[in-house]
Amino acid sequence: MDVVETASALLIGNELLTGKVKDENLHVLATTLRSLGIQLRAALVVPDVPETLVTEIDRLRRSTDLVVTSGGVGPTHDDVTMQAVADAFGEPLVENTEIRALLERVYGERLTEGHLRMALVPRSARVVITNDVPWPTVVVQNVWIMPGVPQLFRMKLMALRSQVRGPVSFHSQAVYTKLDEGVLKPLLDAVVSEHPKVEVGSYPKWFDDRYSTKLTFDATSVAELHAAVKHFLELLPDGEPQWQE
Amino acid sequence: MDVVETASALLIGNELLTGKVKDENLHVLATTLRSLGIQLRAALVVPDVPETLVTEIDRLRRSTDLVVTSGGVGPTHDDVTMQAVADAFGEPLVENTEIRALLERVYGERLTEGHLRMALVPRSARVVITNDVPWPTVVVQNVWIMPGVPQLFRMKLMALRSQVRGPVSFHSQAVYTKLDEGVLKPLLDAVVSEHPKVEVGSYPKWFDDRYSTKLTFDATSVAELHAAVKHFLELLPDGEPQWQE
Repeated sequence: MDVVETASALLIGNELLTGKVKDENLHVLATTLRSLGIQLRAALVVPDVPETLVTEIDRLRRSTDLVVTSGGVGPTHDDVTMQAVADAFGEPLVENTEIRALLERVYGERLTEGHLRMALVPRSARVVITNDVPWPTVVVQNVWIMPGVPQLFRMKLMALRSQVRGPVSFHSQAVYTKLDEGVLKPLLDAVVSEHPKVEVGSYPKWFDDRYSTKLTFDATSVAELHAAVKHFLELLPDGEPQWQE
Repeated sequence: MDVVETASALLIGNELLTGKVKDENLHVLATTLRSLGIQLRAALVVPDVPETLVTEIDRLRRSTDLVVTSGGVGPTHDDVTMQAVADAFGEPLVENTEIRALLERVYGERLTEGHLRMALVPRSARVVITNDVPWPTVVVQNVWIMPGVPQLFRMKLMALRSQVRGPVSFHSQAVYTKLDEGVLKPLLDAVVSEHPKVEVGSYPKWFDDRYSTKLTFDATSVAELHAAVKHFLELLPDGEPQWQE
């Protein structure tokens, strides 16, 4: 099990930038990494432009411990991710015998040159196969190459889960209130300044009668988390309705 | 009406990277820009870290004609977008009299110092108010500063629509087939090489009995679009089922 602290995501595909397809993968990736105690530092959505991919993969693999790419894998002309990862690491693409054997088993006599392109991986790639995820997931050093199809992306996240985790656990609590952010600002400023290790978020909700603002408190220490929430609740005006989750 | 060719998006907020909130704005922005004939070149999802925002806003405003930011506007400590845009342009924040007057009207006697923070904008900002969108939208040169709350983001996109458009119109056609990408690859390669001005996308669909692959064809010329689709259909095996949209 690798311990990694930070991660980044590269979501690849013209279809995400033209609105043809709505991304479904960032949210599930963010939730998964959070539950593993890994900080997702940034996500980029980029078109199928090889030079852009090479530049961004190279930058992200150096700036974060783990990179997850989504999309652009497959046999057609717009599937440029494998080549881009290879270029980012300065490696050629080579045929992977495990993947080739799998493709031969799956496609049998219908196997084409097109299908075989899916067996090409960067030379130093390793192939992760687990009991839960028999389909191979291609990993090059710290870059996990995932398909864009949401069902497959989610399946391969299970392989990721089996191999990496973060150094900490995040603990969270939410408080809902009918006060608006203009009123809450001085209260939050006091909490933020006294509890620097607790991350405090404030999210206004519009067009909802139940509450006006959701406050979130996040920390790696449960004690610090509870102290910050307690401090905030003490600052609320007497009798002001609030509920927690 | 400003004519702009390229755009980028900056989606701001820790909540998008921790999975607390699922982004809803990129897809509606992508669709809107596409319908205006504007190319969305990239989208970045970043945390509420001022230095990161300043760096990225500065980079994006120089590399694309139009930048749309989402999130991080409001009165609380985690609302750092206005200051970051000001810093990216090397300007101070100043109070905007129109926004101040609006806040006084809306909040009346309940107005706090917190609310008044929402009247602070970069010095060269202009405020867009239209008949459809009476709430002001803050624009600094080519950077449109939008709220993250999806209902408000969508409302303010109407203001954007009233002020900018692209130099062209995009035309699209989709073809659905039961063939898989491995089989389609040589057909698509032929179409892509003969119709370089037509963008061809190939999207496998899993777990769906109706079709296996969706092909998309996009062009700024209707004639070129139709020629590419016609060429692709001619290359399909005789009698192979397909349908178009």
